[in-house]
Amino acid sequence: MIMSTDLADVAVAKTKLCFIDGDEGLLEYRGHEVGKLAKNHVFEEVVHLLLIGHLPSVEELFSFKNKMASYRSLPEPVKEIINTIPTDVDMLSVLRTAISTLGEFSFPPTVEQSLSICTKIPSIIAYRYNRVCKRKPVEPSNHLGHTANYLYMIKGTQPELEQVQALEAYLISTLEHGMNPSTFAARVITSTRADIVSSVSAAISALKGPLHGGALSQISMNLQEIGSKENTERWLREKIEAGKRIMGFGHRVYKYRDPRVLPLKNIAIKLSGNDSKLDLATHVEEMTLQLLKEYKPNKQFITNVEFYAAALLNAVGFDNNLLTATFAVSRSVGWCAHSIEAANGPLIYPQSVYSGPRIGL
Amino acid sequence: MIMSTDLADVAVAKTKLCFIDGDEGLLEYRGHEVGKLAKNHVFEEVVHLLLIGHLPSVEELFSFKNKMASYRSLPEPVKEIINTIPTDVDMLSVLRTAISTLGEFSFPPTVEQSLSICTKIPSIIAYRYNRVCKRKPVEPSNHLGHTANYLYMIKGTQPELEQVQALEAYLISTLEHGMNPSTFAARVITSTRADIVSSVSAAISALKGPLHGGALSQISMNLQEIGSKENTERWLREKIEAGKRIMGFGHRVYKYRDPRVLPLKNIAIKLSGNDSKLDLATHVEEMTLQLLKEYKPNKQFITNVEFYAAALLNAVGFDNNLLTATFAVSRSVGWCAHSIEAANGPLIYPQSVYSGPRIGL
Repeated sequence: MIMSTDLADVAVAKTKLCFIDGDEGLLEYRGHEVGKLAKNHVFEEVVHLLLIGHLPSVEELFSFKNKMASYRSLPEPVKEIINTIPTDVDMLSVLRTAISTLGEFSFPPTVEQSLSICTKIPSIIAYRYNRVCKRKPVEPSNHLGHTANYLYMIKGTQPELEQVQALEAYLISTLEHGMNPSTFAARVITSTRADIVSSVSAAISALKGPLHGGALSQISMNLQEIGSKENTERWLREKIEAGKRIMGFGHRVYKYRDPRVLPLKNIAIKLSGNDSKLDLATHVEEMTLQLLKEYKPNKQFITNVEFYAAALLNAVGFDNNLLTATFAVSRSVGWCAHSIEAANGPLIYPQSVYSGPRIGL
Repeated sequence: MIMSTDLADVAVAKTKLCFIDGDEGLLEYRGHEVGKLAKNHVFEEVVHLLLIGHLPSVEELFSFKNKMASYRSLPEPVKEIINTIPTDVDMLSVLRTAISTLGEFSFPPTVEQSLSICTKIPSIIAYRYNRVCKRKPVEPSNHLGHTANYLYMIKGTQPELEQVQALEAYLISTLEHGMNPSTFAARVITSTRADIVSSVSAAISALKGPLHGGALSQISMNLQEIGSKENTERWLREKIEAGKRIMGFGHRVYKYRDPRVLPLKNIAIKLSGNDSKLDLATHVEEMTLQLLKEYKPNKQFITNVEFYAAALLNAVGFDNNLLTATFAVSRSVGWCAHSIEAANGPLIYPQSVYSGPRIGL
């Protein structure tokens, strides 16, 4: 028996879904490099790749998009339940509750079940968001793609193309990432032969954690607190000198570059002429890397996906309540793909070592 | 890096909560042998042991019982949500949804938070059960202990002492069991610094699985299908000869005896004069072990806790919809104790090995 409290040195599965090389800064979904997918494909194509196994033909994409759109509407009891949850309850708890109430799906998990869940996540978020903001609910539009429809439901108006592209790049870049804690939680649940609703619900619980999906709002709040280019250096020096960790920099897996940063940064730069928040974000990134190098010359620091994710989602007009929830919009596809893949796997049942006294002896 | 798809050979934590020796058939909570705890203590004492760290004095127990009782009532929105969930949704999904809607608790998890959650689980189950059975809701009684109150809320009448003792022995015996999948799921969630509501909600998802908590209803259905002593041998031979696994026998961890069986079996035998279902259960156990030995002479078979758990819960008057949910009544205490213990632990983030093609190469 070996002891590993973080499992960082233990592979828990063979997977055909995701290749990660932390040293080379590579991330591939089913062998396709993530930057290329984010640049050249729409969300539904990448969902098709992950769940069905290949990028769709034009005909396949047409019917796949229609199918996804057909699952978007929320059942009435789900709406009622969302309305009943007190408005001060956070968005991730609401999302988990709404998913949980879909009831038990049959085992093993299927592509249809996955699509039914993943397409409802934007609808749940938007329905709740509009309710909390005291706006009229916006029914999903079957004429829009997944990403555009999500923006439409949140904003209540036809979204601009640039915003759709920015959000789509984010969603594709964060669709899947191997054995991250939420995906691993989903696989642990699937290993008991519980249904896919149970797996996704548990994964949302993991994503809530500040060490996982919860970092986005912190980065966004930091950018808001910094507020201006003039204030950046002073703010950063204060934090670094106080020994605080600057969120959005450094990654557990990627040592030299996070492969998801470049596609997002490119979009951020493209939009930044029109958006002072993105101007600020690129400035904060540059200054942070420069100061970290100054204070900690022997350590390597990289920008991670969450930094530009928070900046882009902000630029798209999403407030802090939507950031981690929007992460669930993309990562839910990964959770479902892993649940399908793990359905025949062994029960995951680790050991522990007792370190207390024994009374009877 | 090592590969371990079931983690059976990996210890993921040091714990002061639970000692298990599968070869010797030993289970201890904080060093106290489970059989003794089930025989000599009430539920609240063992909760105190697990969450606070020691068995309470008389004064401590008095105030601890009062405190636990004070948390039992359900907030109105939780009741409304339970009422909104369609009546064909299974009990575990309802329980998870209701817990999920409690909203976000502060991190790190505390004893008070744990008590607030664990005491509401019986209330949620009973509230839902009465609703589905179209009976009037029964408010929790502050004058009854945890176990008696649960029975009272389910049955609507003052429970008999023998039934309380039987249920209490079951609850104490199954309060905690190391790194079982639901508890492990709770620790994975806690490792992200998500709140205890998230951990418990994810643990319920794991417990739903047929390979984990879901076995109870299967055993209970088997006993109902067998129906009589005369039918037992024929039913068992048919199943064994068809290569079916007989649920309730064999255990992943315990090779020679499951230490939780004896306390439950003793109570079953004590009650069995008055209860034909328990007469049948003890007969089925004996006959199963005898036939398994006949058909598979080289293998060792033991009765596991779930066999007598299902039999006892049936004898207490619980139908199949209540069995796995009642497992959550006890095991939730273990989940919470582990969440408290794991709050400073490292992020659990395992690896995976890519086994698919690489398109770009």
